[in-house]
Amino acid sequence: MNPDNIDIVLVHTTHSGNIGGVARAMKNMGLRRLTLVAPLEYPAPEATWRAASAVDVLENARVVATLEEAIAGCQFVVGTSARERRIPWPVQDARRCAERIATHSRSERVAILFGREDRGLLNEELERCNLHCHIPTHDDYPSLNLAMAVQLVAYECRMVQLGEQTNLSEDAEWDAPFSSTEDMARFFAHLEETLIDIEFLDPQAPRQLMRRLKRLFNRVRLDEMELNILRGILSETQKAAAKAAESAD
Amino acid sequence: MNPDNIDIVLVHTTHSGNIGGVARAMKNMGLRRLTLVAPLEYPAPEATWRAASAVDVLENARVVATLEEAIAGCQFVVGTSARERRIPWPVQDARRCAERIATHSRSERVAILFGREDRGLLNEELERCNLHCHIPTHDDYPSLNLAMAVQLVAYECRMVQLGEQTNLSEDAEWDAPFSSTEDMARFFAHLEETLIDIEFLDPQAPRQLMRRLKRLFNRVRLDEMELNILRGILSETQKAAAKAAESAD
Repeated sequence: MNPDNIDIVLVHTTHSGNIGGVARAMKNMGLRRLTLVAPLEYPAPEATWRAASAVDVLENARVVATLEEAIAGCQFVVGTSARERRIPWPVQDARRCAERIATHSRSERVAILFGREDRGLLNEELERCNLHCHIPTHDDYPSLNLAMAVQLVAYECRMVQLGEQTNLSEDAEWDAPFSSTEDMARFFAHLEETLIDIEFLDPQAPRQLMRRLKRLFNRVRLDEMELNILRGILSETQKAAAKAAESAD
Repeated sequence: MNPDNIDIVLVHTTHSGNIGGVARAMKNMGLRRLTLVAPLEYPAPEATWRAASAVDVLENARVVATLEEAIAGCQFVVGTSARERRIPWPVQDARRCAERIATHSRSERVAILFGREDRGLLNEELERCNLHCHIPTHDDYPSLNLAMAVQLVAYECRMVQLGEQTNLSEDAEWDAPFSSTEDMARFFAHLEETLIDIEFLDPQAPRQLMRRLKRLFNRVRLDEMELNILRGILSETQKAAAKAAESAD
């Protein structure tokens, strides 16, 4: 595991005290990179107070306006999620997620997303993730405090780090780098455009089509060469669609 | 594990907010028995507020004057401790401790002691324990918040309780069956045909194209619904290519 490649990303945090609690929880477990996406109130004295001896993590935190900025350049994105989703996404418990995070962080930029206190991550945020992380709370009271959730995930990462052997991941010696989230966003835009061109996707009645395709391609983690091949296929498909449309006129 | 036999014992807690945080952390993980040894300030609004939907744990908490009263009748006592002791005591990390706690709790009364925010448990308190529990924090900042420490130990207990069930595979509850190899073979044939139709693939110089695409789609394991979507896209692409070819004639 390389902690310098792991970013804890808090999305639209409401209570600034929680931001401080998160900073402390991170430093307790050896994580240091914190990104805040449009926090409601920050900097705030409550955050500084709760951070205790982890104010350095707060001082070095990035504050950005959008999730896009927060995860730009990341190749493996994990979203923490309590709720069942209509379309299931690849999900693992925090322990297994930590193993994946530790492995990827050796050579790739990793982001772990934590959502709003009241609503968690929204569907469109969860769809940007390669993997969803589930913390198995009790049904009587499943809602974890935000800083507690970060504490548990950071702890599991530290446990992996402490016990780390040379568990090679499936794709440890891949022949091309994995795509960044920006490249994936551009690919999805191109895919959607093409599906409209060939009249497979009706923008007036899109149903769950793009969500399913995003799930598919985020699940597999496209490498850069694969992404280029798929973009090439889309471009040729668009040319054919354009010619077909001309002939129909 | 029997949660009804497990008591979380907070010894001389200074900050009442932490007591509320502990109550929530416990209920999140299915623990309910809380004992407070001479808390500095309790009941307190800060405790109620931090407990959120775990006020029932607070309401049912025992408040006692001494540690003797708190652990009377207990057969297995675990003390959480960060510091090295002059006389070594049996110590295990939180994961191993949770296994011991789970086992003993089936038939015995178990107490898990958490000390003061600033000094932890005193030597004479730690000497009453059968086992010391160590949470492996980072040397840069080893001091965990009290509620965080309870959260981690309670979480490890819950993980033991859930046992192997929680080792979800990523796709344990997928919404569609995964495709058979025959379906995949048909899909690859259709894909190849379509790539020739749109002139992306030259059958005279195929290079590594199909191999890379097979690796991609076999890596992801397509479910049947995804396969149908992709086959639908290929069919529409072929129609466009056919019209384009007509117009070129």
